[in-house]
Amino acid sequence: MHVKAFEQLIKKKKLNCNVKFMIEGEEEVGSENLEKFLVDNKSKLSADVILISDTGLSSLDNPTLTVGLRGLSYMEIKLTGPNRDLHSGTYGGTLANPINTLSEIISSLIDEKGKIIIPGFYEDVVEIEKSKRDIIEQKSKFNDQKFRDSLGLSEVKGEEGYSTLERKSIRPTLDVNGIWGGYTDEGSKTVIPSKAFAKISMRLVSNQNWKKISKLFKDYMKKMTPIGMKLKVNEHHGGEPYITDTDSKAYLAASEAYNSVYNKKPFSVKDGGSIPIIAQFEKELGVKTILMGFGLDSDAIHSPNEHFGLSNYYNGIETISNFYKR
Amino acid sequence: MHVKAFEQLIKKKKLNCNVKFMIEGEEEVGSENLEKFLVDNKSKLSADVILISDTGLSSLDNPTLTVGLRGLSYMEIKLTGPNRDLHSGTYGGTLANPINTLSEIISSLIDEKGKIIIPGFYEDVVEIEKSKRDIIEQKSKFNDQKFRDSLGLSEVKGEEGYSTLERKSIRPTLDVNGIWGGYTDEGSKTVIPSKAFAKISMRLVSNQNWKKISKLFKDYMKKMTPIGMKLKVNEHHGGEPYITDTDSKAYLAASEAYNSVYNKKPFSVKDGGSIPIIAQFEKELGVKTILMGFGLDSDAIHSPNEHFGLSNYYNGIETISNFYKR
Repeated sequence: MHVKAFEQLIKKKKLNCNVKFMIEGEEEVGSENLEKFLVDNKSKLSADVILISDTGLSSLDNPTLTVGLRGLSYMEIKLTGPNRDLHSGTYGGTLANPINTLSEIISSLIDEKGKIIIPGFYEDVVEIEKSKRDIIEQKSKFNDQKFRDSLGLSEVKGEEGYSTLERKSIRPTLDVNGIWGGYTDEGSKTVIPSKAFAKISMRLVSNQNWKKISKLFKDYMKKMTPIGMKLKVNEHHGGEPYITDTDSKAYLAASEAYNSVYNKKPFSVKDGGSIPIIAQFEKELGVKTILMGFGLDSDAIHSPNEHFGLSNYYNGIETISNFYKR
Repeated sequence: MHVKAFEQLIKKKKLNCNVKFMIEGEEEVGSENLEKFLVDNKSKLSADVILISDTGLSSLDNPTLTVGLRGLSYMEIKLTGPNRDLHSGTYGGTLANPINTLSEIISSLIDEKGKIIIPGFYEDVVEIEKSKRDIIEQKSKFNDQKFRDSLGLSEVKGEEGYSTLERKSIRPTLDVNGIWGGYTDEGSKTVIPSKAFAKISMRLVSNQNWKKISKLFKDYMKKMTPIGMKLKVNEHHGGEPYITDTDSKAYLAASEAYNSVYNKKPFSVKDGGSIPIIAQFEKELGVKTILMGFGLDSDAIHSPNEHFGLSNYYNGIETISNFYKR
């Protein structure tokens, strides 16, 4: 059937709903202008439900519908020591090296049990009962060995007391996304740099508020900066976590649509990624979002050789046209 | 007098010694080929004394003659985690992030008292008596406040129990000279990188042997690498520490030469920098080196806007020609 399904529906004028398209090119950098656009065009954008295809399936024979996303707080820090780069022979030992100090600050963010140390960080995280977590674990068919193999790792680690699946979906995290400072070209240069930099992001869950978390992060950074050095925190962007119901009309229609193509009702999952605009849609327009995605973990997103299978593409078209029909 | 001094000596054929010139363009990258050249040309290079101008004066009214240099061990490390870059939303929390881990490894190198933690690192360091250190401190007229002001720092720190001057000359140190990993361009990218890198160098003193220290560093790095990750250490270059006597004929001639130009006998100091070939000269040719330098701390070496005053240049010519004469 593939792409013909949608064509036929249009030809037969059988699409029983209006469709408004919104194309966004700033999603990876925080959708700052889209937020303003929403506020300015509330009435034009009114809708019953919003559909976004930016999530994935756990596997082709085990379709999933994403009902939760993590929030995000993305920061950049600049640590300044001496007023210029210095010769590490003449000056080595006399002063705090900004790279060594930045490394110390970064290692003070997560403890040996994988807990984020920033005071107040977990305050608004709602703990999910172990029995509920066990059911999700069982239904998801997540395979730790397969996961490790796909990454070429003999061992993975993270927050103690939670499974890999839990750590990637229902738990908040902190990662350094980039670091740089000093001499980074080929060979050697004996320098103590004046400055060192890092990009650090946190994924947030349940009731965590990204502006509150960003503030806690900044306060903690201030506290960790040694006397005599300067630390500047630049807030890149953020977004709230998101959760949608599994008993709404739209969710049930989406579930049926997957069933009609994959011959199996999808299992509802929480995804570790973030789509900050979804919380804005709900806040500004009062409309819930359904996440119908068709990518796979093996697609290597945000990585070299990112790809998307043609069969996933055709199945997606078919599933979405079925969703509209319902 | 300036440049004329040397011209006059030559015109009058009064230079009472032979001079062999050696021009080296690889000093900053470890002089690897010069070492081979020394071995291959031992007889051609025979000499009574070697003169190198690659050190400095503590100030124009307080000339110094460098009688000690620190050794060097310069390493590069590559830490590899997953087999590819990953999306920090989908994967964040599930595995050790190479940048976070590299930061932890770096902060495990120096303790809160400024001591290098690598087992055996201080084994061959000869402790200098406090009374001797106090005399050096007094004679050097090193001013901590001036030093901090020149770097724009309200506070400096380093190994506890040693003054700033001591930490920059008679104590070994460890500095990260460069670090990089993940996304380092403008804006944000939510990535967990596959790899993180750092260039790390150690300055060595008294009896420390750079090959032994490099081995201790490698062993410690191996120990600190978490299970499931790979760490590769690449040895850039190194060199032994160097000390020369203050009662040799050559030292006394150099001292008199300074006196004739600066009207003050120079004070002998140990410099924190490294000139690895000097130890090779002694080992291969059996010849000691005199270090007559004319740079100032404010010359900003290895830093933007590096410079060298013309008056220092002319004084240098005059002092060196006086040295030849003696």
